[in-house]
Amino acid sequence: TAGVTVYQEGDTYVKLGGRIQLQYHYADPDNGSSEDEVFFRRFRPYIEGSVHPDWKGKFQWDMGKASGDNEIAVKDAYMQYTGMENMKFTIGNAKFPFSRENLTSSKKQQLVERTFVGDHNYGSPDRTAGIHLTGKSGDLFTWGASFASSSIDPDEDKLDFDTPVNSNSDFNEGWVYGGRVDFHPFGPLKFSQGDFKGETKATIGLAAFQWENDNDNNTNQAGKPDVDSVTGFEISGAFRAAGFSVDAEYNMFDADTVNGAYTGGIFRNGSTDLENWALEGGYMVMPGKLELVAGYESQDADNYGKEWTRTSVGANWFVHKHDLKFQLTYRMGENVDGVNGADEDEVFLQGQFVF
Amino acid sequence: TAGVTVYQEGDTYVKLGGRIQLQYHYADPDNGSSEDEVFFRRFRPYIEGSVHPDWKGKFQWDMGKASGDNEIAVKDAYMQYTGMENMKFTIGNAKFPFSRENLTSSKKQQLVERTFVGDHNYGSPDRTAGIHLTGKSGDLFTWGASFASSSIDPDEDKLDFDTPVNSNSDFNEGWVYGGRVDFHPFGPLKFSQGDFKGETKATIGLAAFQWENDNDNNTNQAGKPDVDSVTGFEISGAFRAAGFSVDAEYNMFDADTVNGAYTGGIFRNGSTDLENWALEGGYMVMPGKLELVAGYESQDADNYGKEWTRTSVGANWFVHKHDLKFQLTYRMGENVDGVNGADEDEVFLQGQFVF
Amino acid sequence: TAGVTVYQEGDTYVKLGGRIQLQYHYADPDNGSSEDEVFFRRFRPYIEGSVHPDWKGKFQWDMGKASGDNEIAVKDAYMQYTGMENMKFTIGNAKFPFSRENLTSSKKQQLVERTFVGDHNYGSPDRTAGIHLTGKSGDLFTWGASFASSSIDPDEDKLDFDTPVNSNSDFNEGWVYGGRVDFHPFGPLKFSQGDFKGETKATIGLAAFQWENDNDNNTNQAGKPDVDSVTGFEISGAFRAAGFSVDAEYNMFDADTVNGAYTGGIFRNGSTDLENWALEGGYMVMPGKLELVAGYESQDADNYGKEWTRTSVGANWFVHKHDLKFQLTYRMGENVDGVNGADEDEVFLQGQFVF
Repeated sequence: TAGVTVYQEGDTYVKLGGRIQLQYHYADPDNGSSEDEVFFRRFRPYIEGSVHPDWKGKFQWDMGKASGDNEIAVKDAYMQYTGMENMKFTIGNAKFPFSRENLTSSKKQQLVERTFVGDHNYGSPDRTAGIHLTGKSGDLFTWGASFASSSIDPDEDKLDFDTPVNSNSDFNEGWVYGGRVDFHPFGPLKFSQGDFKGETKATIGLAAFQWENDNDNNTNQAGKPDVDSVTGFEISGAFRAAGFSVDAEYNMFDADTVNGAYTGGIFRNGSTDLENWALEGGYMVMPGKLELVAGYESQDADNYGKEWTRTSVGANWFVHKHDLKFQLTYRMGENVDGVNGADEDEVFLQGQFVF
Repeated sequence: TAGVTVYQEGDTYVKLGGRIQLQYHYADPDNGSSEDEVFFRRFRPYIEGSVHPDWKGKFQWDMGKASGDNEIAVKDAYMQYTGMENMKFTIGNAKFPFSRENLTSSKKQQLVERTFVGDHNYGSPDRTAGIHLTGKSGDLFTWGASFASSSIDPDEDKLDFDTPVNSNSDFNEGWVYGGRVDFHPFGPLKFSQGDFKGETKATIGLAAFQWENDNDNNTNQAGKPDVDSVTGFEISGAFRAAGFSVDAEYNMFDADTVNGAYTGGIFRNGSTDLENWALEGGYMVMPGKLELVAGYESQDADNYGKEWTRTSVGANWFVHKHDLKFQLTYRMGENVDGVNGADEDEVFLQGQFVF
Repeated sequence: TAGVTVYQEGDTYVKLGGRIQLQYHYADPDNGSSEDEVFFRRFRPYIEGSVHPDWKGKFQWDMGKASGDNEIAVKDAYMQYTGMENMKFTIGNAKFPFSRENLTSSKKQQLVERTFVGDHNYGSPDRTAGIHLTGKSGDLFTWGASFASSSIDPDEDKLDFDTPVNSNSDFNEGWVYGGRVDFHPFGPLKFSQGDFKGETKATIGLAAFQWENDNDNNTNQAGKPDVDSVTGFEISGAFRAAGFSVDAEYNMFDADTVNGAYTGGIFRNGSTDLENWALEGGYMVMPGKLELVAGYESQDADNYGKEWTRTSVGANWFVHKHDLKFQLTYRMGENVDGVNGADEDEVFLQGQFVF
């Protein structure tokens, strides 16, 4: 695992680590002119430490996309109790146990960008601030359960969850609870894409959550319908064998707006069933060095004219597995935002360094 | 003390540390609807290092409350010369030697939030950028003196000092000088609340400062009277014995606005005598583990209709003293902002991790 | 060199370091009232690490001038391959090989502030995000070449390059490529001002670059002409001997605005030849301890009424060379922004701590 323990004596230790993702992104929509940019997709150091047994604290923050007034994003930020067998108890800002792809670290993805099923813009709750339990039962089951404060950045085109610890003035505040179970018939399989080991592994996962607006900050602005509640459901799976790596996920979100008559973007008459799924896979044509990957993702919403789909192909060159790699993804989007015929082609080229 | 020295060889060393305070805050005003939120009250790593004898540098910053355009707060940020006996010389951003409660670290407080006497919103100068001397004379006296740049965030309802190194465009700029002496009749007693040792200790302190606007940035906006000068005076004391811990402090601030006729908030006819005091105490019902605490604080200003008071009760559960604790405070405010009958009840629940 | 390697084992290492520059700045323009301020000119920790041979990552960011919505500046932020002889390959945000003074670290300057020839506000490309090669050929030649994304903050009074990784919404986006060669007839001389060693050293350098707007973000606002292209050329030199240290540099920038008729600030009829040069020098009156310094800098532009010049005198007190020093510079500006008779005197006093 990443990070370097720079000091350890008894129960006292300090660990440092970081990730750099420098991305070139080119977008060419059918309607409109193409644009490109170079930016840090992620630029994220972390410090972890402890001076007492069974407890640790983690400080992780991101300085990529440090533009305008959005300069810092607080990431893993928690204290954690590790003194129980098979279970960890976390207090603070941490990942929510929903969406296999979201729970797969950004540094361990096959495609440069997550698909609809893992993107916090489309229903996955992002990090939340609260209490989190994660655990395992033997080698066959892993699980997670959280109760936390969680915000939604209102936008009629999205179902955009954000952590409340980096809130903007228009965020809907709320509470979320949920949990997941993953079954690993051939022994534990971590949330990590790409098959470096060649062992046969598989996972099937189920998850669900409920988010409720606490009505502390509804701003009712144009194009930004306040979200009242969201219920989410996930079924997902993964398979690894002989250099093949496949991840599949289906999510369903039932979301209501505070204004029961709101129509626009993904919402019709104050409600939407946002449904998305994705299939991603790859094969190591040069084991541990070069992987060819492909993905297909789809999203539908009550108010979409037509299903939004994206087809991706790409290649990953691993210099040192996920620690140091270069990724190229070509993504073809159709009916962007559910608008029939609104197509867009994108190129993502990314270099990654992790220590 | 906090922090881990991860490397030391000769005069070269590096130390790392951090604090996490995750707070749940619920506010229920008499007039208006209740609100709650979960946020990082403090999320603050630090790096300290030296490559030469007798000098060190400290880098501490806070990423809690990273909202809107207020994402980073520079905290202890200085170079320090420690080569003198009984005296330290600090250049940079550091605490100003006023207010016993302000000088007591946020991680060593009995109540979740500071009271009027230590809150930089009500007259205590916060960190300032300049030169700072701190020292001791035997075991009986400790002292501090500073000359520094210091800003005021103009607001008719407050006397809000802020460090100039995180300035906003409307801050009044100025210079401040002042000093303090603390007398410890039973030997040195650190700025730290709660009695873990059970030894009898006591402190009596006196402090004063003078702040003057340098007129570089007076903006004269509605509700934000530019402050011309502030004179502050403090008398404070502390007592520890047998698990009891009591802190008491009285402050008086004589503040004038640039506009000599300004009336509003705390100011009447361009001036105010802002007077606040607080009494806080606690008893370890389970020594070193569980402390029950209570506090009373009061503030009066020339233009207040009635004295603003707050009564607090709470409990602190120490897992590892101040390094790892959970705190609950219930605070009952009366005549908020000096408005007769404007009451507000608040709940603060906070988990703290320090390494 | 700066930084402390806090852990090393095999190819794995972690290094930490930082710089603090606390500055007092006083400005007294002929027309207008004087102002002063105290602020962190730089407050910059860094973390560097590696877990694999020949590659390292660096995370450096600045929290000085953390005002308003400009709280973080990403500085050295890259992955670097060091496995080639005499050459380093860097991917990420790093210095561009133009301007001897810009390439001389801010912690190794004789004057508190850079002059026209090294200031990114006047034509030097600042850090850029892309690929960078640096190398040497024997002891006599060093060189650099970069291809990168680079932005311009449009302003008719400046030619202000900024890294795209901290972009504002009005930045012109573009691509830049360029290179430099430095010849050291008496053996390698680093980019560092002040002569601590007393050895005779010299450098002559040549550099050039081309920047082109990619037209992704032209906003055409008043006073902010979008820049279409910039061609830059540099010739520079340095000499060290017997406690004397002299740096000289001449730059020429040929810049065009998108609007071919734009006149204002430095531009006339949509174009300018911005020409600047500087001569800086110092002598160690107390070797390694006290240096007296002086500088003269000049800038001319097509639309200037008269050449803008600045004369500086100052003194540097080195407690531990560039690691810990105090600097005083008095700078006399004439015809500021090319306006005949617009003079301004400035005082800079700065304390610096580096570890």
